Amino acid sequence: MTKFGPHEQPLPELFADAALPALSDAGIGQNEIDAFYLGNTLGGMTENASHLAPALASHIGLRSIPCQRFEDACATSSSAFKHAVQAVENGVHDTVLVGGVERCTPTTGKETDEMTKIFASATHRQYEQPTGITFPGVFALLTKRHMHEHGTTREQLAEVAVKNQHHGSMNPRAHFGENATVDDVLESPVIADPFHLMDCCPFSDGASAVVVTSPELADSYDGEGVNVTGIGHATDIVPIADKQGLTETRAARDAAAEAYRQAGIDADDVDFAEVHDCFTGAEVIAVEALGLVEDGKGGTAAASGLTALGGEVPVNPSGGLKAKGHPIGATGTAQIVELTEQLRGETGDRQVEDAEIGIAHNLGGDTATTFVTVMEVTA
Amino acid sequence: MTKFGPHEQPLPELFADAALPALSDAGIGQNEIDAFYLGNTLGGMTENASHLAPALASHIGLRSIPCQRFEDACATSSSAFKHAVQAVENGVHDTVLVGGVERCTPTTGKETDEMTKIFASATHRQYEQPTGITFPGVFALLTKRHMHEHGTTREQLAEVAVKNQHHGSMNPRAHFGENATVDDVLESPVIADPFHLMDCCPFSDGASAVVVTSPELADSYDGEGVNVTGIGHATDIVPIADKQGLTETRAARDAAAEAYRQAGIDADDVDFAEVHDCFTGAEVIAVEALGLVEDGKGGTAAASGLTALGGEVPVNPSGGLKAKGHPIGATGTAQIVELTEQLRGETGDRQVEDAEIGIAHNLGGDTATTFVTVMEVTA
Repeated sequence: MTKFGPHEQPLPELFADAALPALSDAGIGQNEIDAFYLGNTLGGMTENASHLAPALASHIGLRSIPCQRFEDACATSSSAFKHAVQAVENGVHDTVLVGGVERCTPTTGKETDEMTKIFASATHRQYEQPTGITFPGVFALLTKRHMHEHGTTREQLAEVAVKNQHHGSMNPRAHFGENATVDDVLESPVIADPFHLMDCCPFSDGASAVVVTSPELADSYDGEGVNVTGIGHATDIVPIADKQGLTETRAARDAAAEAYRQAGIDADDVDFAEVHDCFTGAEVIAVEALGLVEDGKGGTAAASGLTALGGEVPVNPSGGLKAKGHPIGATGTAQIVELTEQLRGETGDRQVEDAEIGIAHNLGGDTATTFVTVMEVTA
Repeated sequence: MTKFGPHEQPLPELFADAALPALSDAGIGQNEIDAFYLGNTLGGMTENASHLAPALASHIGLRSIPCQRFEDACATSSSAFKHAVQAVENGVHDTVLVGGVERCTPTTGKETDEMTKIFASATHRQYEQPTGITFPGVFALLTKRHMHEHGTTREQLAEVAVKNQHHGSMNPRAHFGENATVDDVLESPVIADPFHLMDCCPFSDGASAVVVTSPELADSYDGEGVNVTGIGHATDIVPIADKQGLTETRAARDAAAEAYRQAGIDADDVDFAEVHDCFTGAEVIAVEALGLVEDGKGGTAAASGLTALGGEVPVNPSGGLKAKGHPIGATGTAQIVELTEQLRGETGDRQVEDAEIGIAHNLGGDTATTFVTVMEVTA
């Protein structure tokens, strides 16, 4: 993956900066790729660039193979990854390049307020957008409810930001590389109560890519593979008002159950997790839905050190969306990159000790789409 | 599928008008659908509606199942269909709802000039858009080259429009229902030489949906199934300037070869075809790429009656994009609907006699993405 943060390059060049190193890392050339599965979320709206898969493929020297784009809001490249894994599992393709790319910073010519409106296209057009709600508001609603139900506090939310900023300070590819304190978070401007600016992930530019192949072929390549042992994908009801419970995030629970079932594990077996912390409250809710902590205990998980590096189950060792950044369509496969490098023991200061089983949790829209992926070290 | 043409309904309601009849036609309920594969191309740009799969699924009563959106320009819902067929073939899902929906007429608040610019997002952002080219220009370039290489004439192009308008006059769901003459076409305003207005398909609103299931399950449902026996998907180099030949449309040839190989047929076995006639010249080039006529003979195919209803291989009995209309993301699955109904012998005055093998050819962008699908009557 590229460093996340502002990038001036057009999308094909930015994507190449992730895709070509992914091929090198795998130890293969373009001729061994027989399909390209792309995640991009907002390119049409931000850069008048749709139908991107052929343009990116051409730019990196892929020829004639099937190329397709997926879009499922913030979960976009996890959708591409799921379909690629299924294609390889079922012998449809031998080796697939999967990646995501997005530019969301003012390098597109669009400032954050305009990007926030564009990104709100992933809320319900008829029932939610007319109210003026944008995503900070969506997750503020969920988080306020969690505070009401479980006594979660503003300080506990801030501790999530402090933890992830600290993790990100050890990630050279993170958008934000600096540590923060609880006071820093609480003193930053209010965005959507209970969130202050530092409870929110940034819009970033960036790209990420991975190579998916069979265990047999992986053995024949120089690159060091890890195993994908489960992928769950579920969809919740929208609009938000129709959900049975705001803090349950049903799709995350369904996706986790399916992923754990496929992998033959349960939540206790998870050594670390990359979760979708677009806002601090989103991580609080996610760690419960994934079964990493009991329901209602998400608020104290970061503050107690449970989910910090060195804790029982480190969450977002990469820094998460909060510190690593969130180039929408690139986020899903960036989680897969972090899982891969953690499982290979290549992440330096932020390495999770004895990392054998990692999960990625990637969420799209108003908690409507969720993918949970289980990855493990090869035997 | 809905009638194509202007629709005032929001996308979830418009899609429901195709999806619910598709379930009824199959003789199944929502509970039997275990995944939803959606094609929508421009919703973010036209209606600020991205992440549409969960919203449409919720609206028609689908719950918890994986829902995902595909976008590959005009070939969008053919991509969704391909992935659904693969999922069923490989036992990933039992029964998948596949569909597409789009609004492109001024019901979105955007006039044709603005839509033309939005749709040009599917050309190459860096190398083509700065020249000001839009899709009439892209296909005009290809067609001018065909005229130069093969002596194809303006009148021969007009004959494609006359044929497809005539077919569309027998299709109650067509956007345009009236016959036209060669003079009508030649006297309509020039859009991009050699195309006049009546050489161009319209932007339409509309939705289409199909149910994909296994042969075994299909037998247990009341609906009358047809077989999908081959799907080819290939991608050509972009930008146009980098292609080896303008009129070859390499992706169409690669996709057709793959689809025919899977189906165990050759082009001579094809009884009828739905092809992507976004412009009259596109049909001329497509019938050659699909092997329905020899290279260089596409120009005379419509004028001679070869590709008309009653001819050797009827092309676009539905009226094609030209007359039936082109709601971008709905076009691919609308071709599948026409193939299905032709193979079931349900299309009335426009029925192809002895229709046993039909193909659909759906193209995206500057001839970059092409899907070719073979469907056959069940034994």
